[in-house]
Amino acid sequence: MKLVYFDNAATTKTDEKVVEAMMPYLTEKFGNPSSQHFVGQEAKQAIEEARKIIAKSINAKTSEIVFTSGGTESNNLALKGLFFNNYPKKNHIITTKIEHDCILKTCSWLEKQGAKITYLDVNKEGFIDVNQLKESITDKTILVSVIHGNNEIGTIQDLETIGKICKEKNVLFHTDACQSYTKVDLNVKKQNLDLVTLNSHKIHGPKGVGALYIKDGIMLTPLLHGGGQERNIRSGTENPAGIIGFAKAVEIVKSKDIKQMTEMRDKLIEGILKISNTKLSGPRNNRLCNNINISFMNIEGEAIGGYLENLGIATSTGSACMSNTLKTSHVLKAIGLTPLEGNSSLRISISKYTTEEEVDYFLKELPKIVTKLRRLSPLIN
Amino acid sequence: MKLVYFDNAATTKTDEKVVEAMMPYLTEKFGNPSSQHFVGQEAKQAIEEARKIIAKSINAKTSEIVFTSGGTESNNLALKGLFFNNYPKKNHIITTKIEHDCILKTCSWLEKQGAKITYLDVNKEGFIDVNQLKESITDKTILVSVIHGNNEIGTIQDLETIGKICKEKNVLFHTDACQSYTKVDLNVKKQNLDLVTLNSHKIHGPKGVGALYIKDGIMLTPLLHGGGQERNIRSGTENPAGIIGFAKAVEIVKSKDIKQMTEMRDKLIEGILKISNTKLSGPRNNRLCNNINISFMNIEGEAIGGYLENLGIATSTGSACMSNTLKTSHVLKAIGLTPLEGNSSLRISISKYTTEEEVDYFLKELPKIVTKLRRLSPLIN
Repeated sequence: MKLVYFDNAATTKTDEKVVEAMMPYLTEKFGNPSSQHFVGQEAKQAIEEARKIIAKSINAKTSEIVFTSGGTESNNLALKGLFFNNYPKKNHIITTKIEHDCILKTCSWLEKQGAKITYLDVNKEGFIDVNQLKESITDKTILVSVIHGNNEIGTIQDLETIGKICKEKNVLFHTDACQSYTKVDLNVKKQNLDLVTLNSHKIHGPKGVGALYIKDGIMLTPLLHGGGQERNIRSGTENPAGIIGFAKAVEIVKSKDIKQMTEMRDKLIEGILKISNTKLSGPRNNRLCNNINISFMNIEGEAIGGYLENLGIATSTGSACMSNTLKTSHVLKAIGLTPLEGNSSLRISISKYTTEEEVDYFLKELPKIVTKLRRLSPLIN
Repeated sequence: MKLVYFDNAATTKTDEKVVEAMMPYLTEKFGNPSSQHFVGQEAKQAIEEARKIIAKSINAKTSEIVFTSGGTESNNLALKGLFFNNYPKKNHIITTKIEHDCILKTCSWLEKQGAKITYLDVNKEGFIDVNQLKESITDKTILVSVIHGNNEIGTIQDLETIGKICKEKNVLFHTDACQSYTKVDLNVKKQNLDLVTLNSHKIHGPKGVGALYIKDGIMLTPLLHGGGQERNIRSGTENPAGIIGFAKAVEIVKSKDIKQMTEMRDKLIEGILKISNTKLSGPRNNRLCNNINISFMNIEGEAIGGYLENLGIATSTGSACMSNTLKTSHVLKAIGLTPLEGNSSLRISISKYTTEEEVDYFLKELPKIVTKLRRLSPLIN
């Protein structure tokens, strides 16, 4: 049975070119970048080259990129690092109701440490209201943190507009770009970004590595204290293989891949919506090129996923991180879905490796599964 | 020029078997362990197998191992996690003057958050005084954290005795075992350990991965909040390739490697001490099997390192993390070395790959370098 992998929002297959770039740093070039001798310096130079590639991709300076162990660490570092550096002088953070759990749970922990958090509402397509944002900013506000491309419903926020407001009001602006990076333009100058979370494994890079863009001059309290690596912001022996793989993944992104994903996304959305009683979650425009999220009235998303799995098709009902729990997604709730609608949702997330053949196969099999499940549904019968 | 790598305390060459074990998880087995479908579950099962291997190696339960991004994160998590979970009820941590910077800098940050820290003295061989430890414990003490094998001078502390004291006094006991793991017996039951920091890249595993043993029932505040991975203690998408490589590195350790390193260490120590005006730092017994640290009166360790590098021999003057700075090592200071003696130190750290030939070559070349440098030394002439 051939695997059809439609869960690329959870993680992606590492690109062969990425693995190839990593290999020397997993074998003969094994130095510790902090070592002053040639073995260490060889690794050091390679990570500095990688840093340049990442910096350039978002129009940042090389010195503004700090490598971390991934998106979760970058998001934690951005929020906690700023909080500890500003508290008690300032203690207010503004975020949204549709962030990834690593933002929301960090915020709820920070509340216990004395932070005040404002969670912005979103409309039924998942967009924030910039007026509510403006009204929420006070003289105690440290930071506005808004997810760029939503991991469940694909909504792409208008960073430029938000950035302008933050600049006018003189508050810092962070975005979690884990899902959007390399798929949607990120330009820290144009969008007035102060902090950006980036990660590797959503873009065919290795797991265990990410980065945080930190605009020059912004002070963060480190999460990890120690040997002083990464300009003293993120201690711990660097992971050259991971970092170099990450940069290679960024380097090989092609605009034609984005175009191809967008076309397949639209074909999937249109094809699936032909099934009766289905509803797209998230917008048609300003949507991540690889995200499809649809609810199928009267049946459980989990059940559809199970039947698809029998055919070798891997999908998800939401965030991979949430898939151990059965509660309704906070994102679907925020856009106004009822628990019943929320639980009937299926997320299909494609990649540059997705083929027409896979899309056609999926569109052929899915209606049969839905029909079968609806026949069994206690909600109908 | 052949590389002679004598800086294995900084990092080690990844074992070929480790890379081989990692490869499937860098290629076709790319799932996110949190995904419920078969692609994710395949990765999940592999990390659970890895967890068993790590747990067994220190006589712990599988459920007591949490994977992290490395030793620095594990040490930060142990100390900050316990502090935030106990403060303000308890606020006192006891550690030593010869810890790695990731313990010391974490402690100094915690002091700003309200912690009281006691830094135990060590004797001239680097051993703590258990009486001082006993006397330091108060009813506000949360934790005793003592490095197992010192990264600079190789001193191996008597964990069993310290563990007994901690148990009697009802305080928790953590050890940073980054340098000692797989080289010295670690048995969490026999040594009464509550928390143990382990890492991978010092034992021929990949960089970017480590673990923290957390005894069942001990509560830690997470450093990284998010999706709830690793029993909600360490969120962030797991790094299966890294974790599986780490476990493979543990699995392939052979006792004959330890024996061989010990013999070569002793040959190196004896050979180097034949050079006049040299002094071993750290003990002869209860010393890490791969550590040699010697000061060469009247010359700079950095200068010796530079000349050795010209011959293709990579050594260090101390902790890799500290090698960017020129200040005297806090460890050498703690064992009573003068700044002059401290700066004349060279650390030679070998591995299972070290050959007799390399040792002989080193012992042949080193005296020539020392003679040459002493001839140039302003401290003599």
